[in-house]
Amino acid sequence: MNFDNIRIVLVGPLYGGNVGSVCRAMANMGMSDLAVVRERELDMEEARKMACHARGILDGRCEYDSLEAAVGRCGMVWGTSARTGLYRQHARTPRGWAKQILEDSSRGRVALVFGREDKGLSNEELSLCSRIIQIPTSDEYSSLNLSQAVMVCCYEVFAASEVYEGPEEKSPLAESELKERMFAMWREHLLRIGFMESDKAGHMMQGFRRIMGRGAVTEDDVRIMMGMVRQSEWAVDNLVDKDGRAGEA
Amino acid sequence: MNFDNIRIVLVGPLYGGNVGSVCRAMANMGMSDLAVVRERELDMEEARKMACHARGILDGRCEYDSLEAAVGRCGMVWGTSARTGLYRQHARTPRGWAKQILEDSSRGRVALVFGREDKGLSNEELSLCSRIIQIPTSDEYSSLNLSQAVMVCCYEVFAASEVYEGPEEKSPLAESELKERMFAMWREHLLRIGFMESDKAGHMMQGFRRIMGRGAVTEDDVRIMMGMVRQSEWAVDNLVDKDGRAGEA
Repeated sequence: MNFDNIRIVLVGPLYGGNVGSVCRAMANMGMSDLAVVRERELDMEEARKMACHARGILDGRCEYDSLEAAVGRCGMVWGTSARTGLYRQHARTPRGWAKQILEDSSRGRVALVFGREDKGLSNEELSLCSRIIQIPTSDEYSSLNLSQAVMVCCYEVFAASEVYEGPEEKSPLAESELKERMFAMWREHLLRIGFMESDKAGHMMQGFRRIMGRGAVTEDDVRIMMGMVRQSEWAVDNLVDKDGRAGEA
Repeated sequence: MNFDNIRIVLVGPLYGGNVGSVCRAMANMGMSDLAVVRERELDMEEARKMACHARGILDGRCEYDSLEAAVGRCGMVWGTSARTGLYRQHARTPRGWAKQILEDSSRGRVALVFGREDKGLSNEELSLCSRIIQIPTSDEYSSLNLSQAVMVCCYEVFAASEVYEGPEEKSPLAESELKERMFAMWREHLLRIGFMESDKAGHMMQGFRRIMGRGAVTEDDVRIMMGMVRQSEWAVDNLVDKDGRAGEA
């Protein structure tokens, strides 16, 4: 899986820093094709600073005079819009579109288009987009920073690709037999050190079992809990002097 | 649903601009409780600039001398880590944790902790976190900008809350009867204007039906397609002069 067919298009960005941050977000999510519809000079020093290790994307960007030119070779074009109104009812969230973006990009180049920081995309520009993306936000503040909007969209496409294999717990779940051996060791120890009387042992152990049952318990976890109780037993036998204070072994 | 119990903690941020961007991302996703573990002076002018309309969050932040103090009143603490190693196998993605974060925050305050831009959280700091979040990224560039990392986590929690009601297509799907009436009008018109011969009509109309079948077709869509063909019929009757060129009605 690669994302070479997914082009990120920025229309008339105002701030070089945002363009740089967009590059970094793209790199984080495995994308690399950036197109800029240039309407003004950008602060490239600021752009390079924010791009960090994604300067290759910044330097490799394509520049165009119009959105029409930037998406001319794209088979499907998504536009982003925070606005309510004209196109709203046809919009979907980035997660709602992600699988479709992947599918269409497997058949040719597609574009995700982001508007100016202050006024987004014009209606004319939105009409060049077959499909509209609307990022879910709080009602109180729906305008995202440009690079944050790009991140959310790229992140959703990346997540939908299932390229990323999450970390995995290596230790298997502890089976009941093993866990019961551990509970038996603790029961004996807690009785011996006088943490509980034998007539309360069932009740107290139920509490301990509940604590250990809040989440999954792995074999590694059981080994640690067994190690703790074994060492406590050893300490009782070897370290505690007559006054009950720890002494030299 | 509110997110008042979800505290965002920044440990030793280096750049005011990032702190401001974090505030904006939080506001976009309906969060407001920001804590900063301060290790140096921050450029507050830059912070206010990047916070935009989320200055209230910036001004309302709590400052602490240590992570221990910042999460002291939190019932559950998630730490973010990009690193492989010690804690990796226990980490989950933001999406993997989102429901749990919501559930736990309904029972008390919880914290999502983000480390320094250059070196993240120390092992000692991570040990204060019961749970580890790892953001999925490309293998080639796994280090996110601080505010982008906050955005991805807050966005996932916001999305999991299902607070956001996406835009909805208001027009119902067109039923077959209505669509067939439209196809019949187009068939008649395309025959009349000589777009197809009657022996090819079935084949040509099949192509047209396929185009119209690529996606959902609503009643509004059918009304537009019927309006177009009706006007074309009218134009043929009224506008075309003997030479076949458009003239005055």
